Amino acid sequence: MPIEIPEVVIERLPVYARALTELTTHGREVVSSQELGALLGVTPAQIRKDLSYFGRFGKQGRGYNVRRLADELKLILGLEREWTLALVGVGRLGEAILSYGGFYPQGFHIVEAFDADPRTIGRVIGGITIKDVAELPAALVQRHIDIGIVAVPAEHAQQVIDTLVNAGVRSILNYAPIAARSPTHVHIRHIDPVLALQSMTYYLKARELIGVK
Amino acid sequence: MPIEIPEVVIERLPVYARALTELTTHGREVVSSQELGALLGVTPAQIRKDLSYFGRFGKQGRGYNVRRLADELKLILGLEREWTLALVGVGRLGEAILSYGGFYPQGFHIVEAFDADPRTIGRVIGGITIKDVAELPAALVQRHIDIGIVAVPAEHAQQVIDTLVNAGVRSILNYAPIAARSPTHVHIRHIDPVLALQSMTYYLKARELIGVK
Repeated sequence: MPIEIPEVVIERLPVYARALTELTTHGREVVSSQELGALLGVTPAQIRKDLSYFGRFGKQGRGYNVRRLADELKLILGLEREWTLALVGVGRLGEAILSYGGFYPQGFHIVEAFDADPRTIGRVIGGITIKDVAELPAALVQRHIDIGIVAVPAEHAQQVIDTLVNAGVRSILNYAPIAARSPTHVHIRHIDPVLALQSMTYYLKARELIGVK
Repeated sequence: MPIEIPEVVIERLPVYARALTELTTHGREVVSSQELGALLGVTPAQIRKDLSYFGRFGKQGRGYNVRRLADELKLILGLEREWTLALVGVGRLGEAILSYGGFYPQGFHIVEAFDADPRTIGRVIGGITIKDVAELPAALVQRHIDIGIVAVPAEHAQQVIDTLVNAGVRSILNYAPIAARSPTHVHIRHIDPVLALQSMTYYLKARELIGVK
């Protein structure tokens, strides 16, 4: 039952899949959990436990077949297919997202982009013509969107998320710094550099307290 | 001993601190773990367990004093003070980071920015004059930097991280899509939207497999 697997485990699988794919490009056929752990900065026990949720991938003492494990993980994660994305908010951040070359090769195709600024609407970035955000509900009816990307200012983010959810979008990647509300059947991931920084300072402060430079 | 607390717990504390701070602005004095959990989409038991690492904050059945818990969490995380940041890489993404208004009010002050492109060096963005990345090592000697932000293309990221680490930077926020190597005393957090998307599709695919729209 997929729903019983902790979300933190699911979040680590793409990291494993990426490292394994990298290893295949170097012609590696077998890798141990020790080596994979050393590459990624996690313990071998953690890797073995994470993978154990999905069955037996390696033989005791023999390590993992790199390509087979990479392929299995991609299948589990749905990375063998393509997904359609709509971006809402094309300010500086949205423009960086639209111009970023890293999504398409991984099967993530941004096929629509929306903004509220008349100076932005109609511009073409990364092959996408920016539409008026007022057209968002109608556009979501016309074209199936798997994942919505929210890159609007904080004060408009909840409204945009509600619009996406009401139109049937079930996954949202949110860049706006808000504690967004959504129904439980909708999966929201937040990309928030301030939250990341705010947990990093814990370690900086702890180091100062124990007197390590 | 701070080092025994799981990193996932540390990563959740800023989320709690933010929600509590938001509650204080609405004049709330007491909040239960149930209510806080409902606000944030985590279980009350998770909140109580996370906070238990740091002592006893609430009285059984009475809930938490909102302001006191917010202040305690900020102190634990080092959010009561200011931190200096240097940004390396001022392309579209770096420019969005430099222009983003959300860092400064939270005590995160970007005081230096570097790029390799002659057309970018010398530009002033968000009050910061972009310097030549060749000056990075010297600049890090002159001015203490708590946290480095890496927003260069993937192929240059490891080299920039090495330069930061060699100059004594102990915390790095990395936007480049690489499995960066660093010594164990350096704390690296990755902001990688592709990795986030790659775990979100797990849930989209699981939903399709069990036949839920």
